[in-house]
Amino acid sequence: MSEEMARKEKGERRKLETNEIFIGNKPFMKYVIATIMQLKENKNEEDTAIIKARGKFISRAVDVAEVVKKKFKETENIELKNSVTIGTEGFTSEEAKKINISTIEITLKK
Amino acid sequence: MSEEMARKEKGERRKLETNEIFIGNKPFMKYVIATIMQLKENKNEEDTAIIKARGKFISRAVDVAEVVKKKFKETENIELKNSVTIGTEGFTSEEAKKINISTIEITLKK
Repeated sequence: MSEEMARKEKGERRKLETNEIFIGNKPFMKYVIATIMQLKENKNEEDTAIIKARGKFISRAVDVAEVVKKKFKETENIELKNSVTIGTEGFTSEEAKKINISTIEITLKK
Repeated sequence: MSEEMARKEKGERRKLETNEIFIGNKPFMKYVIATIMQLKENKNEEDTAIIKARGKFISRAVDVAEVVKKKFKETENIELKNSVTIGTEGFTSEEAKKINISTIEITLKK
């Protein structure tokens, strides 16, 4: 299989892997570095990193975005643009209860 | 003093009182109700409510905004528009240490 075909097949998954950073329980700086890498490595049209989080991790997602913005300003003298969307995801718990959880998506762009 | 003058003098303060909701440790529904009141009472051009939070309260601010949006949809059949900005506030701690804290502002509009 050609590399082109392989990439096509993995399409959506590949995009998720490279472009998005999901915030969870890992050490804070892991997310900061992952986001910076994403923005620096980028050579194609998708020069963005998308920081995503749910529930209590939303505050952390904002912290990660702000630290990345600060570091880019200090080391590269680049002011990152950011856009933020919030939303709600609904799911059903093990006890068949309907649960809503808030979500955030912070898109950082050079 | 005319009411007009009195309002002018209190200007900024008045605006803060009526238009903005600062998220803290109070019971969750207090903030939801305050935001809904702000949006419903509004009869002038400022038909917005601004939900503000810092640090760990950021997740809570998103929850408040999402619950208000849901309630407006259910009871008034109105889809609220929202715009979100994030930022950093710096201040100096008692030990003269510089501390940065993330902030969020969620503007809800009918």
